[in-house]
Amino acid sequence: MTPDPKDIAPWITYRPELKVLDCTVRDGGLVNDHHFSDDFVKALYHTCVEAGIDYMEIGYKASKRVFQRDRFGTWKFCDEDDVRRVVGDNPTSLKLAAMMDAGKSDWKTDLLPKDRSVFDMIRVAFYVHQTVEACEMIKAAHEKGYETSANLMAVSQATEVEIEQCLELVAETPAQVVVVVDSFGALYTEQIERLVKKYLGYAKERGKEVGIHAHNNQQLAFANTIEAIIHGANRVDASMGGLGRGAGNCPMELLIGFLRNPKFRIRPIYQFLQDWIEPLRAEVEWGPYVQYNITGQLNLHPRAAIEARKNPEDRNKYVEFYDRVTAES
Amino acid sequence: MTPDPKDIAPWITYRPELKVLDCTVRDGGLVNDHHFSDDFVKALYHTCVEAGIDYMEIGYKASKRVFQRDRFGTWKFCDEDDVRRVVGDNPTSLKLAAMMDAGKSDWKTDLLPKDRSVFDMIRVAFYVHQTVEACEMIKAAHEKGYETSANLMAVSQATEVEIEQCLELVAETPAQVVVVVDSFGALYTEQIERLVKKYLGYAKERGKEVGIHAHNNQQLAFANTIEAIIHGANRVDASMGGLGRGAGNCPMELLIGFLRNPKFRIRPIYQFLQDWIEPLRAEVEWGPYVQYNITGQLNLHPRAAIEARKNPEDRNKYVEFYDRVTAES
Repeated sequence: MTPDPKDIAPWITYRPELKVLDCTVRDGGLVNDHHFSDDFVKALYHTCVEAGIDYMEIGYKASKRVFQRDRFGTWKFCDEDDVRRVVGDNPTSLKLAAMMDAGKSDWKTDLLPKDRSVFDMIRVAFYVHQTVEACEMIKAAHEKGYETSANLMAVSQATEVEIEQCLELVAETPAQVVVVVDSFGALYTEQIERLVKKYLGYAKERGKEVGIHAHNNQQLAFANTIEAIIHGANRVDASMGGLGRGAGNCPMELLIGFLRNPKFRIRPIYQFLQDWIEPLRAEVEWGPYVQYNITGQLNLHPRAAIEARKNPEDRNKYVEFYDRVTAES
Repeated sequence: MTPDPKDIAPWITYRPELKVLDCTVRDGGLVNDHHFSDDFVKALYHTCVEAGIDYMEIGYKASKRVFQRDRFGTWKFCDEDDVRRVVGDNPTSLKLAAMMDAGKSDWKTDLLPKDRSVFDMIRVAFYVHQTVEACEMIKAAHEKGYETSANLMAVSQATEVEIEQCLELVAETPAQVVVVVDSFGALYTEQIERLVKKYLGYAKERGKEVGIHAHNNQQLAFANTIEAIIHGANRVDASMGGLGRGAGNCPMELLIGFLRNPKFRIRPIYQFLQDWIEPLRAEVEWGPYVQYNITGQLNLHPRAAIEARKNPEDRNKYVEFYDRVTAES
């Protein structure tokens, strides 16, 4: 029997229902306290439109009670006026998303009804112990007319029982998407496969999609994203040049090169990397440096690694860092 | 039925028969024309010993008729005297390997009998059209007493029939190892799985092992190495800091962190990265830069990408590079 070419070379075809979300400004904001210029965000917006990307996550809608407005950049708060200054009324097919953190956002007061907002989607980020609040947030955002997504963070530190109980509760919400989030870049491909299958077990029968948000601590963000796609994740996060906290995210340029859907165009992405991402590298640092390798392998928050790389003179003191975090952990 | 923990969390255990080869000086030599100081190679040798690595590939045994002795560093030729200056008689359990290229080495004259050589293994690198010479080389090296390995390069550009015919011939040689070599960093994990299984189909019943040598053009070298291991590859190449031509190789520090065999020690590797690899970065460049992403995605030799990054002022001209290689290919 001749094997089905789709089974032999599945990477040649494409999956039309797969949608890509750009999180450059949102996750990248964790590198520079959300101090992107309007020009940067505008250039990124036009790049996403030209590249055929489905969603652009433009930042957080964070609480102004918790975070000082003058310490952080515009994109920590994403007020409608600020966003419209960049995207107008967004007369494109690119959908705009904002992230709201459980415990750190005023979701009862800060969300306009969808018909008065330029945003299309609210992504709710939360830890296991915040699941109940997250479910309330999802319901509230849904009732205001937004698409919604449940992003359970730091899943590599949650127990199986915690994850399952969380998914049971999330499954009953109107969230269209449940995202596997490898906050610490600690997961190997085998673990990604198991988590995606587990999430699909709760999501699929309720008509929800599963997403993937990978971090690059062990240079596995792109590989883990591919793995999630293979096992059925249809919502995929990536960022230009992998910009993101610490080791960064799955690089958009690699993801779009891998996906075979002709609606995506890679050339505008290279243009953005050249014009905006490379100059940014002169100011801030991100990428899979050795300290991030180490926290990823130890399944730790990258906090200590970020701290260790702050002083350029100490950046290569790998052994000292390794000794310290292994003594502490 | 309770699932077998080995099936749920296979990354927690280890495979004793898996052996790691360090190719820092050999593949890294392609970055600096093999001009490593004796001190560098000596430090690496001691690091490999302390880290419990199984093989160290110390360079090429290249033809002095084809390559000028004064243009290239010592480790392009690996004369016994030069190697012994660094490793003495190698009174350790670390085995030493050299690579010989089909078409570019004097294998009939340049190999001493094993009992007069400090080397333990000869790895034969070849393209599909050189398979016959490669098989002769393997036989000759085996008869002189060396362990041998067959490294079919650029497999991503060979047809299935070519690969299969090559494997049929190699299977009849005394080579203990057949290596899946992703010279262009073009392969995705699904393709790695298929190739490893195909190679095992020829190798296993003849008592041969399958190896993996991955390049990092798409940040997949480590992920593809894991994938090969999962599917049965027991011989694994990696290099310190991923040092290697163009985008570089699978980083040793990530590989050793992933493997759970307690014979490996990661701390000496961080020491080597800190003392030797980071200073080297000030002199030469390697890593998964955008031009390498592009040649990887297009399944091209990294030649054009290496050329494009030579002049620091032109390094970020991604769009021009993309337009050029897509126009040419």
